[in-house]
Amino acid sequence: MALQRGASPWRVSVWTRSEASLPAVRTALPGCRVSCDLKEAVEGVDLVVLCLSPQAIETSGDLLAGILPASVPVTDAGSVKARIVASLEAALGGRFIGAHPMAGSEQSRIAAARADLFDGALCILTPTADSDAGALDLVRRFWSDAGSRLCQMSPDDHDLAVARISHLPHALAAVLVQAALSNSPEIAGLAGSGFRDTTRVALGPEVLWKEILLDNREHLVTAIGELQARLAALKQALIAGDSSEVETILREARILREQPQP
Amino acid sequence: MALQRGASPWRVSVWTRSEASLPAVRTALPGCRVSCDLKEAVEGVDLVVLCLSPQAIETSGDLLAGILPASVPVTDAGSVKARIVASLEAALGGRFIGAHPMAGSEQSRIAAARADLFDGALCILTPTADSDAGALDLVRRFWSDAGSRLCQMSPDDHDLAVARISHLPHALAAVLVQAALSNSPEIAGLAGSGFRDTTRVALGPEVLWKEILLDNREHLVTAIGELQARLAALKQALIAGDSSEVETILREARILREQPQP
Repeated sequence: MALQRGASPWRVSVWTRSEASLPAVRTALPGCRVSCDLKEAVEGVDLVVLCLSPQAIETSGDLLAGILPASVPVTDAGSVKARIVASLEAALGGRFIGAHPMAGSEQSRIAAARADLFDGALCILTPTADSDAGALDLVRRFWSDAGSRLCQMSPDDHDLAVARISHLPHALAAVLVQAALSNSPEIAGLAGSGFRDTTRVALGPEVLWKEILLDNREHLVTAIGELQARLAALKQALIAGDSSEVETILREARILREQPQP
Repeated sequence: MALQRGASPWRVSVWTRSEASLPAVRTALPGCRVSCDLKEAVEGVDLVVLCLSPQAIETSGDLLAGILPASVPVTDAGSVKARIVASLEAALGGRFIGAHPMAGSEQSRIAAARADLFDGALCILTPTADSDAGALDLVRRFWSDAGSRLCQMSPDDHDLAVARISHLPHALAAVLVQAALSNSPEIAGLAGSGFRDTTRVALGPEVLWKEILLDNREHLVTAIGELQARLAALKQALIAGDSSEVETILREARILREQPQP
């Protein structure tokens, strides 16, 4: 939908794993080739974009190597990069360029598709020393034409950063919902916009998110440890009735949060 | 602003503690009486509404008792109720009816005022066995005319519930910002809507929020303890690579979060 808006729209071929989703995909993407047969879907394409869960992306390299001409670049939209880049480079070589568009919502499936989803959002590309320059150029053009702003970093730096800025907030939203509502679900009826916003991402599909959190678990466990230390310090200040320390913690958080963001 | 929209608008008299804010208040609320003199502000009124920080509300009972006719009901908009209700009932008797409108944002001061702020939001009233029936009627009409839906519970039940649904999310948003950004503030530039929503409330004024969190610290410390246990369980499942347990935690959170909310 995003790629078909411009003056020179991309021709898009969609592979979907489920026969049941074919009618909805065809309705949402008129003018696109749609197929459940991977070989048919990738026939004649200039670029392959893997939009699957992390584990499915990791295992798709060997599959593609067997059916895709050696010249066709491949990118992905996975939320964790080090393991994906390692396995896809092993299977496909330097024509694989990892990508992580920082866009999306708690929704999933084709019905949640929006043409403006990537507009203005950052897309992080994670090329390596082995990356093919022509593949990188094409992949940059793809994500840029979809509407994103681009930046580049190493797969490890990416995983460390998103553990804090994306995966930690997700993990925390889930345990916040549990702690707030498990013992008395009826108090959900008292929620204001603060609770709704703070926990919105907990509405995301657990089958996808468990893969993301586990795929990045080394960095995420470190980030959770840092949060546990901060939370213990705030709890201690509350127990001690230390007004000055509670204010200092809240002030530091406010000032950090006020920094310019995309 | 909300009370002046209807067919029979309320006449409003505003007391502000700061001379410097008088021009902005007069501009935002044309047709209202505005004064920095409390005695002048409450002269001839039928109802007093205390919109101050918890500690300032708690200490205003004695001040009002000295200048307000004994027949005038008083309500408030404080986020914690047990201590406020105890001190205001001691100073003013059954004409004080505690209230907590579940509306607002991270913004503060008169510039953040909106006529529709309370529309559809829940306002929790916390009358007690000592409450005056006429005062309760008038206070209900006031919050209802402002646009809120009403419910009633005891001050203690209120404080226990909001510790989980409002004060815990606030405390957590602050430590999440610290854990995510303290060591590397530049990764704020990578944030997507998930991080922004999850941490929005951390933008709130720390001088107000430290009072709220400390005022409700007994229930909040208990809620933080429950969250710490949930977080430790998720961290352990991640360390163990227990895919089934991580999925179970995320699923439970999603289902709890999907419950109907206001």
